[in-house]
Amino acid sequence: MEHVLDHVGIAVRSIDDALAFYLNVLNGTLEDQYTSDAPGVEVHVAVVRTSDKMIELLAPTNKNSPMARFIKQRGKGVHHIAYRVNDLDKAILDARKKGVRFLEDTLRTNIRGRRLIYINPASTDGTLIELCSYANINNSDD
Amino acid sequence: MEHVLDHVGIAVRSIDDALAFYLNVLNGTLEDQYTSDAPGVEVHVAVVRTSDKMIELLAPTNKNSPMARFIKQRGKGVHHIAYRVNDLDKAILDARKKGVRFLEDTLRTNIRGRRLIYINPASTDGTLIELCSYANINNSDD
Repeated sequence: MEHVLDHVGIAVRSIDDALAFYLNVLNGTLEDQYTSDAPGVEVHVAVVRTSDKMIELLAPTNKNSPMARFIKQRGKGVHHIAYRVNDLDKAILDARKKGVRFLEDTLRTNIRGRRLIYINPASTDGTLIELCSYANINNSDD
Repeated sequence: MEHVLDHVGIAVRSIDDALAFYLNVLNGTLEDQYTSDAPGVEVHVAVVRTSDKMIELLAPTNKNSPMARFIKQRGKGVHHIAYRVNDLDKAILDARKKGVRFLEDTLRTNIRGRRLIYINPASTDGTLIELCSYANINNSDD
């Protein structure tokens, strides 16, 4: 199954502090901005498009947010890379058959309707990778 | 000027250990593999294509390589995001006018002919970002 790079998620302390670079220097456009208060998510999100791809800026909503813990451990910077697929359930099943482990038992749907799951970095040689799909688009870019 | 996501660079300890995931799970294809012994570079490189974008796996050639120091400080994982532009000299000039600082005084050309320079993470809110261009392609994807 084709895996299409969907976005790169970047951990920041403040959306406002980070946005300027992506808008003014990379000439990106702000496509969406929202906050997710779901337990274990707890992030402010800004989605910036540069040319054909998205950057997802992620700032913790509180000091116990997983994003706050990530920044404390690793510093600001890239948090994850996301690949989208046409059939997320099948992609997860295929990956499990190859021995891949996931951080959650099942996928979840975020407040913008994206279905997603994180692969355990132990299965990727250290990088946090998200698999995702959207309800209403062709996820393979064909 | 349009900035097109070119690749994501990932710091790994061993190319062989990292490759399996990108080839077997993300169904990528190995496009190139080489070693750069240039002082201050000192990396083994594997370039993997998944769909429309490249992942650049970067493993230190020795324990004093900058990539070895990066892994010691931050662990394995994403090292940089690279954007390509049609006119790299102009993109650098434009960025400098906006107050952006770079890690090097001038761009360099890697052993595959890619012209590149790294932006100082202090100017990007913490993420290492490369600007690059290739000699013989339309860098804007038009």
